[in-house]
Amino acid sequence: DEGQLSEETRESIIALPSEAIAALLESLPAEQRLKVWELISADEQGDVLFEMHDDARRHLINDMDEAELRSMAARLSPQELVELNELIPPKLYSRRLKLMSIKEQTAVNTAMRFDEDQVGRNIDSDFISISETLTSQQVMRLLRQWQIPSNTDLLCLVNDEGLYAGSVQLTDLFNAHPQQAIAELKLEEDPAIAAEMHMSEVADRNYQNHHAMMPVVDETGQLLGRITSQDILGWVQDDAEAAMLNQAGLSEDEDLFAPVKRSAKRRAVWLGINLFTALLASWTIGLFEATLEQVVALAILMPIVASMGGIAGSQTLTLAIRGLALGHLSMSNAMLIFKKEIAVGLLNGVVWAVVIGAMAGFWFQQVAIGMVIGAAILVNLIFAAISGVLIPLMLDKLKIDPALSGAVILTTVTDVVGFFAFLGLGSLFLV
Amino acid sequence: DEGQLSEETRESIIALPSEAIAALLESLPAEQRLKVWELISADEQGDVLFEMHDDARRHLINDMDEAELRSMAARLSPQELVELNELIPPKLYSRRLKLMSIKEQTAVNTAMRFDEDQVGRNIDSDFISISETLTSQQVMRLLRQWQIPSNTDLLCLVNDEGLYAGSVQLTDLFNAHPQQAIAELKLEEDPAIAAEMHMSEVADRNYQNHHAMMPVVDETGQLLGRITSQDILGWVQDDAEAAMLNQAGLSEDEDLFAPVKRSAKRRAVWLGINLFTALLASWTIGLFEATLEQVVALAILMPIVASMGGIAGSQTLTLAIRGLALGHLSMSNAMLIFKKEIAVGLLNGVVWAVVIGAMAGFWFQQVAIGMVIGAAILVNLIFAAISGVLIPLMLDKLKIDPALSGAVILTTVTDVVGFFAFLGLGSLFLV
Repeated sequence: DEGQLSEETRESIIALPSEAIAALLESLPAEQRLKVWELISADEQGDVLFEMHDDARRHLINDMDEAELRSMAARLSPQELVELNELIPPKLYSRRLKLMSIKEQTAVNTAMRFDEDQVGRNIDSDFISISETLTSQQVMRLLRQWQIPSNTDLLCLVNDEGLYAGSVQLTDLFNAHPQQAIAELKLEEDPAIAAEMHMSEVADRNYQNHHAMMPVVDETGQLLGRITSQDILGWVQDDAEAAMLNQAGLSEDEDLFAPVKRSAKRRAVWLGINLFTALLASWTIGLFEATLEQVVALAILMPIVASMGGIAGSQTLTLAIRGLALGHLSMSNAMLIFKKEIAVGLLNGVVWAVVIGAMAGFWFQQVAIGMVIGAAILVNLIFAAISGVLIPLMLDKLKIDPALSGAVILTTVTDVVGFFAFLGLGSLFLV
Repeated sequence: DEGQLSEETRESIIALPSEAIAALLESLPAEQRLKVWELISADEQGDVLFEMHDDARRHLINDMDEAELRSMAARLSPQELVELNELIPPKLYSRRLKLMSIKEQTAVNTAMRFDEDQVGRNIDSDFISISETLTSQQVMRLLRQWQIPSNTDLLCLVNDEGLYAGSVQLTDLFNAHPQQAIAELKLEEDPAIAAEMHMSEVADRNYQNHHAMMPVVDETGQLLGRITSQDILGWVQDDAEAAMLNQAGLSEDEDLFAPVKRSAKRRAVWLGINLFTALLASWTIGLFEATLEQVVALAILMPIVASMGGIAGSQTLTLAIRGLALGHLSMSNAMLIFKKEIAVGLLNGVVWAVVIGAMAGFWFQQVAIGMVIGAAILVNLIFAAISGVLIPLMLDKLKIDPALSGAVILTTVTDVVGFFAFLGLGSLFLV
């Protein structure tokens, strides 16, 4: 029957790498998604879930019965267990943990001590550490017996007390004399990073030091694991995606095929916040009810004033947010940027005041209305420049991410200022 | 005097790594920026420029005299020469190229054949290639004599004809028998990628295959070079930054301290585009001039209808844009997402129609106005859902990046539809 997948389709799905299966599942509506999910073996389920967004993961997990869940959980790797910890029942979490090796248990418990954006949470425990007392030949001999994990370009050294003692570039072993102490090959610039470090800083470091991996240590000097370039790359991609979604008031975990009710409920919050700012704008307009009754042209033209201010302000805001993120903008040079942006606002304000003023004057065959809208545009563009610099700086001081709420606050300002300036000037000169 | 940097400041600046100097320069206004730039040796200038944005680079280069430029250009690495090719005089470009080794010249000329977003342009020519006819012992011996570049976890093999023949994981050499042919150690899943590949696809590949580097080959099978995880990381970060700026109609090269005139001129273009859409909204309002004269409450409330539609639409749009980017949304499942988003729009439309309708009715003490705004909100949220899915799909089909122009088109639709529905219904039922 129609609802069934053909044998051929089944086989080609099973043959896909787990990232591709994850993408396929997220692109399918509920019913089909569950049908494909049934094809995935308990062995691979963890890998696939690892690559998915939270909402879609939850959808699949909620559909699994007790036995299926147990069998999947029992096969999770330490990194998968950490990533999925909130989605599987606590009982299964601890059961899986107990069946891990001591080393793996430590890895999981260590990761759970940190936030998702800290390197400690993103650690890979599959790495090589070696006593710093060995010779290069002894190390070579050990490496011949071991399975070396992919992405290994550094060997981590530990001292007698088991604490991190530096790193050796794997390729430096080739040129070393057999009897040379491995400790002598240590990199001068230690690539190790603290487990508390934010992943965005880790990304900058890694971009600069060009290592395929970096050792991660805690405050006592204990070597906790390593972070690889791919882990960092994955985080950076997820972070950029989250930033884009958060700007529209969406969660980065939003599922394309989330149930209608849940989607509607979540988005309603952002609509509610926006309604509040729209009401402020309407209230401003309401102050000039009597004027609007007399000069209906004002009602027709007012969206132009608000919208030009919003666009100009969001340009300044975006530049300021990038400046903050890259460390180019700080309190020390804020005044200079402030002046520059006001100058840009003034210049564009004058240009567009003339253009829009002329158009409006021509449209309504009245010079005064052109003058009023021109003046309002000028005022609003200057206010937009001021807000575009001040709002992100203030939010940053308050430890609020300006990329999240900056735009809403900014457009509230430019709407209110724009309407107030335009209708206020209209009341004075057109009635 | 005040304008001079203290000896201490000079020394601490010179000691910074080139990425930090680049960030410092971008955070300084014109005059101070040039003063710091003078401290940087011709040797390091290329490294620093490499890490900067185009506008700030141009600012520094424009300030250098003939001799300074010549001396900097003469020290550029192949990667730097490619990155800065548009900014230095063609004469200096070809002079620098001529003084490079044949290998480096080839690297530069190869890179220049590709777009900035293709892997061919981002190639690193510092890598190791080895004849596939050697034994593992012979390779080990060679490696002992060579300087192995950082981030090397693969050896690239070439056949008798000099064509790429596969890759060997460096660490597999440790476990290999001395007499084993290196060709036998070849990775089964060849990590090589085509030089034409888009960097975003390269990033996905690299995230999946966990190599510190990937060999890059052209259509004839020639090995052109390699791309490292750090090169990919740098591109992904730049790409995310560009996406954010482009959304606000800004260039990713925009300088925080660009001259006021140039900044104003560039931003004016985006303001002009926006003015056109705002005029469309005003024109729609103008159709209902007579109605507005009689019912001024419509003028007061109309921004709410437009703004709720804009917000709801941008949520759907953002989800659709992510879906397209991740491959979760395509023509094959578009109809399903379309239905789902319309259902979400309908649900939120009903909820907010009731809330806003009640508020407006209460505000103006008139049930009819509440009904009219409620109906307009409902209509606009459904149109917003439709546009939020259709606009990005259409732009994608036309090979236009929906992240760039999607939002402008969407808000034009929601403004026009919102005003038309609200004022149209108002004309029918309130006059």
